[in-house]
Amino acid sequence: MARIMRLGRVELNVLDLEKSVEYYTKVIGLEETGRMGNSVYLKAWDEFDHHSLILTKTNRAGIAHLAFKVETLDDLAYYERKIEEFGCTTTRISSNTRLAEGEAVHFILPTGHHCELYHEVGFLGTSVGALNPHPWPLEAKGIAPHRLDHCLLTGDDLKTVTRFFIEVLNFRQSERITTVDGEELLGSFLFSTNKAHDLAFVKGPDAKLHHAAFAVDSLHDVFKAADLLSMYEVPFDVTPTRHGITRGQTIYFFDPSGNRNEAFAGGYISYPDMPTITWTEDKIGQGIFYHRRELSESFMKALT
Amino acid sequence: MARIMRLGRVELNVLDLEKSVEYYTKVIGLEETGRMGNSVYLKAWDEFDHHSLILTKTNRAGIAHLAFKVETLDDLAYYERKIEEFGCTTTRISSNTRLAEGEAVHFILPTGHHCELYHEVGFLGTSVGALNPHPWPLEAKGIAPHRLDHCLLTGDDLKTVTRFFIEVLNFRQSERITTVDGEELLGSFLFSTNKAHDLAFVKGPDAKLHHAAFAVDSLHDVFKAADLLSMYEVPFDVTPTRHGITRGQTIYFFDPSGNRNEAFAGGYISYPDMPTITWTEDKIGQGIFYHRRELSESFMKALT
Amino acid sequence: MARIMRLGRVELNVLDLEKSVEYYTKVIGLEETGRMGNSVYLKAWDEFDHHSLILTKTNRAGIAHLAFKVETLDDLAYYERKIEEFGCTTTRISSNTRLAEGEAVHFILPTGHHCELYHEVGFLGTSVGALNPHPWPLEAKGIAPHRLDHCLLTGDDLKTVTRFFIEVLNFRQSERITTVDGEELLGSFLFSTNKAHDLAFVKGPDAKLHHAAFAVDSLHDVFKAADLLSMYEVPFDVTPTRHGITRGQTIYFFDPSGNRNEAFAGGYISYPDMPTITWTEDKIGQGIFYHRRELSESFMKALT
Amino acid sequence: MARIMRLGRVELNVLDLEKSVEYYTKVIGLEETGRMGNSVYLKAWDEFDHHSLILTKTNRAGIAHLAFKVETLDDLAYYERKIEEFGCTTTRISSNTRLAEGEAVHFILPTGHHCELYHEVGFLGTSVGALNPHPWPLEAKGIAPHRLDHCLLTGDDLKTVTRFFIEVLNFRQSERITTVDGEELLGSFLFSTNKAHDLAFVKGPDAKLHHAAFAVDSLHDVFKAADLLSMYEVPFDVTPTRHGITRGQTIYFFDPSGNRNEAFAGGYISYPDMPTITWTEDKIGQGIFYHRRELSESFMKALT
Repeated sequence: MARIMRLGRVELNVLDLEKSVEYYTKVIGLEETGRMGNSVYLKAWDEFDHHSLILTKTNRAGIAHLAFKVETLDDLAYYERKIEEFGCTTTRISSNTRLAEGEAVHFILPTGHHCELYHEVGFLGTSVGALNPHPWPLEAKGIAPHRLDHCLLTGDDLKTVTRFFIEVLNFRQSERITTVDGEELLGSFLFSTNKAHDLAFVKGPDAKLHHAAFAVDSLHDVFKAADLLSMYEVPFDVTPTRHGITRGQTIYFFDPSGNRNEAFAGGYISYPDMPTITWTEDKIGQGIFYHRRELSESFMKALT
Repeated sequence: MARIMRLGRVELNVLDLEKSVEYYTKVIGLEETGRMGNSVYLKAWDEFDHHSLILTKTNRAGIAHLAFKVETLDDLAYYERKIEEFGCTTTRISSNTRLAEGEAVHFILPTGHHCELYHEVGFLGTSVGALNPHPWPLEAKGIAPHRLDHCLLTGDDLKTVTRFFIEVLNFRQSERITTVDGEELLGSFLFSTNKAHDLAFVKGPDAKLHHAAFAVDSLHDVFKAADLLSMYEVPFDVTPTRHGITRGQTIYFFDPSGNRNEAFAGGYISYPDMPTITWTEDKIGQGIFYHRRELSESFMKALT
Repeated sequence: MARIMRLGRVELNVLDLEKSVEYYTKVIGLEETGRMGNSVYLKAWDEFDHHSLILTKTNRAGIAHLAFKVETLDDLAYYERKIEEFGCTTTRISSNTRLAEGEAVHFILPTGHHCELYHEVGFLGTSVGALNPHPWPLEAKGIAPHRLDHCLLTGDDLKTVTRFFIEVLNFRQSERITTVDGEELLGSFLFSTNKAHDLAFVKGPDAKLHHAAFAVDSLHDVFKAADLLSMYEVPFDVTPTRHGITRGQTIYFFDPSGNRNEAFAGGYISYPDMPTITWTEDKIGQGIFYHRRELSESFMKALT
Repeated sequence: MARIMRLGRVELNVLDLEKSVEYYTKVIGLEETGRMGNSVYLKAWDEFDHHSLILTKTNRAGIAHLAFKVETLDDLAYYERKIEEFGCTTTRISSNTRLAEGEAVHFILPTGHHCELYHEVGFLGTSVGALNPHPWPLEAKGIAPHRLDHCLLTGDDLKTVTRFFIEVLNFRQSERITTVDGEELLGSFLFSTNKAHDLAFVKGPDAKLHHAAFAVDSLHDVFKAADLLSMYEVPFDVTPTRHGITRGQTIYFFDPSGNRNEAFAGGYISYPDMPTITWTEDKIGQGIFYHRRELSESFMKALT
């Protein structure tokens, strides 16, 4: 019974490592858990694995890779075979290529993104522990999200990448954006958990990142995050609003390298048998920004 | 890849059918979707299946059965075999024994509760639909929960029922309450989705219901629900507070037959690899009621 | 001890009376309390006076007059004399010129707006009554604000109008916007209650309305209001955000005639001895929209 | 135009000064602003005066005095005369008898409580300042209330003390609790600002304190305060709920000396012309605790 448990980590390319670490620890409120080479490893307070975010110094911002944690070591071989059958090349990345990581299966998505599956990773535990825990840590700083939540990537062939996730990795599609005639797929929202999305794609250039999202608890926390971003003078893309798609409450803003981040709350509980929700292109405005009801140029164009 | 998708329905025994229907539609805000024999069928606005709650007139309150929806018809046979292997007797309940339901596998839990697995059930869709939907329905009434969330049952042998759910139905245990020496299991919180619990047990008499819970969005909605209950003069068991266990925000109250209901918000995202959280009996107060930090007699004793 | 108790009513000019009444009752959720001539009278559920909003059919949108309720009949004569001493002409408007209203003192503000003071007005009581009341009415519809909260007007000479309100009507200034050198007054926020503002002015053409604001309870209610506006396809000016000025949580949108409305929550408690908060023009962005940190053209230019 | 601006300070008797200071700074989140003799002076982050709370070491908990700030120095003489005319003895307390305080008028309320009026007190400013301020201070700790909000005192003759506040100090009565026949006054809620109460009395022994309340912003903040109190193991009296009276959202808990504190949010805007709301004794349960709908013994009996 192979299963993808979650989007376990994202590696972001950043231009200035120390400035980025300061931003992700002080403003976002992640905890630095290690360093190796040009990379810094971080986790959110409610995550128990060693890291969910890797910041790697390079000369161009963007997403270096994303990786999903599978339930057992055997799942690696199972998915490896299915990926190969789909026509993607896989390679094994050996243990400790990155800090605290076990072996991983690497492949390139139909949209050109580097993706991995893994099961083994160091265990650190959450900040509140597993014995009579408090509901949140007194020492939390900044936005203090619970965890990495999802990524939105861009790509040209959304039908193929959607088919890949559904057929190969057993994801389901919670929502999709289509042209009014239903012919073309402009957006695809995918889940393997019971969250409204674990990964999503919108039409655009291959191999690009639209945003990496962190989960907070409530509208109140989204708003508090927005206040904090203003105090720290972080540039906003989108101020507090609701998504039609996922129903979530959201803000978008940029890390020091221009990678877009989201603080996301809410969203419905998805189930494998839920009917896929369709947004037609003429309603894409309210689909993305339920209040403003129109897209902004920056939201469409700023990609890393 | 068999999987239990969710707690799909609960059948509650009620003493006065019309009074109960009025309560569950006007105060809770469910929608009546059909009647058959002594039973009325209801669903929440955000559920797409035909019903999640069946109210059946009898002369003693309590839970008649609970049922889990599996992902495919084949899963029925798979789980049927595993249940039998565990030593429980299964019987097939034929289609349309109840309204809009397909075939089900029936068995009795080690705690004496009647339980079923099923895959087929009528489809009605949510109140907001699946095409360019609004995030919530303007016409929602009462507490207007999104869905049936979980049940808490009582039983004597929690170790065996926990083992049953983990070994047979592939659940995981998110939290547990034990004696201080760790020897005895006093509470067991189980999930097969990514919610903090889909079903839970506390030590007590077999075959009894502690509560059936409905999911609302936020602390604000829990509080609004509490206001509504006062307006409708519904008896409270527990006024707004937080659980240490699950971290959820909660109120408890009683339906006209004395069955306890909960309106529940929040709770963390669970994952199959999360370490089980342990609450020791000396901290059971904050585990159950994080603010009050002590149990109340009514919460322990009122069972149906 | 004369005192201005509150901004008691606003008369808005509207182009289509029935469409406007439908909007203010169904979307905003006010109650129609009477009609007379070309005018419809409305109140919010938590107001006890006969009306706080008058919609009058004309061929140009805008504000016909605003009126403050004074504590006693004697206060009328007291303020009348002070207004005249300041150099403004006053006239008495006789009882029942408008529905349910007693005598009023009329004058024109230094910014050209028609303003009145009054004490007598019909009493209807709030929707929840004054005997063992519930905290909110079950039958509330739409945004369901508690009350009319404040207006923002535009004018050329903000120093004089501020001096008028402080010296003549005993208001205080909670906040002000000035040029960086402090020479020119670009915005002036005034209160006679303990709210962060009861009336405000920004630099602009005389005799114009920027917006009329209604008070809701919380960020959650601002957000719910925003959802409702999208369901009813009401045009937004500003989606949910925080003001730096007053700290309030806010949305702006337009009635069917183009008059801007605000749903406003929060804001601090003001006191007569509070130091006036100064925003310098270079920080006007965060003063107005604390998250976005820049003004929008529509917010500056759309006036009625 | 004399006016009482606010409840400016409360002096609480505490048994262990250092433990009390630790509690009021770390858990409540006030700032220590000075020490003199056996007293420590504190203010909330959003208060601009030198202090609003004085903790004085004695051997019995309770309220040493409460004091109202008047708008001008002349108001002192005005109220002094009115107090004497009512039949209460006044004495002048000279400047700097306590830290940073100007002259005060002292008198004893008909309920036996020591009360003062004052105008002069040192100015410190809020934590966010008065020039382009952020809406809240990043460095806020603990519950971090905006300000001292109100006190509830007990006394035998509520009619006289109510008459005193209305006739002498120009307060109004927002709400009252009476016997069902309306003959006896059991509770009296009084305001001179536009808050739902600035001071309140319930029937009980003279000269006692029921609680001192601190204002927070929202239900969310009340709940966060409750979480914090559990983390710091502060004893609760009342976990999160709503008051029928004032509609506020509330928790009650005890300082290290047994003085009851409240964290209070919400409550309506009061106006001098609002009809006094009456709660009859048979509905006192929902008046005090809108959800539970019954009084608790601890809430009635624990007084200092």
